[in-house]
Amino acid sequence: MYADVMENIFLLVLVTLLSVVQNVFFALKVEKECTGFNSKQHSTAFERLSCANRNCMDTYPTFLAVLWCAGICLSQAPAAFAGILYLVVRQKYFVGYMGQTCQSIPGFLFGKRILFFLSLMCIVGIINHLMLNYGSSDYKEYIQTITKAASTLLLLP
Amino acid sequence: MYADVMENIFLLVLVTLLSVVQNVFFALKVEKECTGFNSKQHSTAFERLSCANRNCMDTYPTFLAVLWCAGICLSQAPAAFAGILYLVVRQKYFVGYMGQTCQSIPGFLFGKRILFFLSLMCIVGIINHLMLNYGSSDYKEYIQTITKAASTLLLLP
Amino acid sequence: MYADVMENIFLLVLVTLLSVVQNVFFALKVEKECTGFNSKQHSTAFERLSCANRNCMDTYPTFLAVLWCAGICLSQAPAAFAGILYLVVRQKYFVGYMGQTCQSIPGFLFGKRILFFLSLMCIVGIINHLMLNYGSSDYKEYIQTITKAASTLLLLP
Repeated sequence: MYADVMENIFLLVLVTLLSVVQNVFFALKVEKECTGFNSKQHSTAFERLSCANRNCMDTYPTFLAVLWCAGICLSQAPAAFAGILYLVVRQKYFVGYMGQTCQSIPGFLFGKRILFFLSLMCIVGIINHLMLNYGSSDYKEYIQTITKAASTLLLLP
Repeated sequence: MYADVMENIFLLVLVTLLSVVQNVFFALKVEKECTGFNSKQHSTAFERLSCANRNCMDTYPTFLAVLWCAGICLSQAPAAFAGILYLVVRQKYFVGYMGQTCQSIPGFLFGKRILFFLSLMCIVGIINHLMLNYGSSDYKEYIQTITKAASTLLLLP
Repeated sequence: MYADVMENIFLLVLVTLLSVVQNVFFALKVEKECTGFNSKQHSTAFERLSCANRNCMDTYPTFLAVLWCAGICLSQAPAAFAGILYLVVRQKYFVGYMGQTCQSIPGFLFGKRILFFLSLMCIVGIINHLMLNYGSSDYKEYIQTITKAASTLLLLP
């Protein structure tokens, strides 16, 4: 069973590990800013970083849940690809907050499009499972090909 | 293997998706309030909403972990049912915070009863697995029937 | 399939349940402090507890993700052992925040060593899977033995 399971999830595990590394990077940045400006503790830079970090952390469980559901329900390659794109968007968001420029979006939901794509993958996977159960034929192969093609559309700006 | 796994988790995936939709709804409400009262940024309405959102987000990983453990260890139908009840309670909690009325509870732990029920399901599932391992017979069928009946008790106010 | 899956995850479920119990304990402590000092709401004790709780909650999804990935990719016994050590460290961190003493660390990342160990387990598991796929022999038995031995090194202060 072991090899069978691993075959279906190892890309998801890799993306999860990458996101953990990114979380640690964010936390270290906040910590460095916190100890650096110890004299005037509530400096704006620290507050901005801390806010960006909290926004990222707030959506992190949601991201993980959708990523894994999509990967297990349909297929792991497009899900992992979308996950990596999400991490890139998150990095941009955090760096935008760090710099003095105004490129940071105020919203709590960056990467809405990617989360929507992953949710759609879950729903398609469940519908396919139900159709398979109630007697019709299995369209999984076709759906997986379409999903792989569709995931490249996420690269559009 | 695919159909076998999907059979055991598709209700859990559905509940997870519903909770993600609810999270997005909460975040949009907070964002709307945040940009709406831009002139006096720290308005009480925004602070209340933001606080309610943070409380919900703090317990979200706990909820997801317990939901999936209960669903995998014992059976998915009662777990998904309890999960939906939890989402309803959370919605009530958030709406209570939004309104000016005093129906919002101050605690961090709404839906304690539901989380307790899900934890109990995990423990029963593990005990059943250990009993099965050490030679006695399998009571899983009975336990699942009892759990399904017990989950309706959660509907009591 | 059921018994097979349970055999590989029941320790992880137990650790997850323990961490949920700890989360509830933290939340109850914060709630008690919050209602106790209702007259001067922003007391320092409440702020300190609330901050400790938020730090713990911020890293909680990361911890859960790494714990489960490590447990599924390689083997559950060392992962669960490291998870329990992490819970002990978290308890110490929170209690240190509660007391007036200075034993609390200001960082966001307590238990870095344990999270690093769990991440390493994931990576080793994935490399082993890829090696197994591309034709070489299976070193999983050896790796599991080494991991079990290495996990005891985490006990060193």
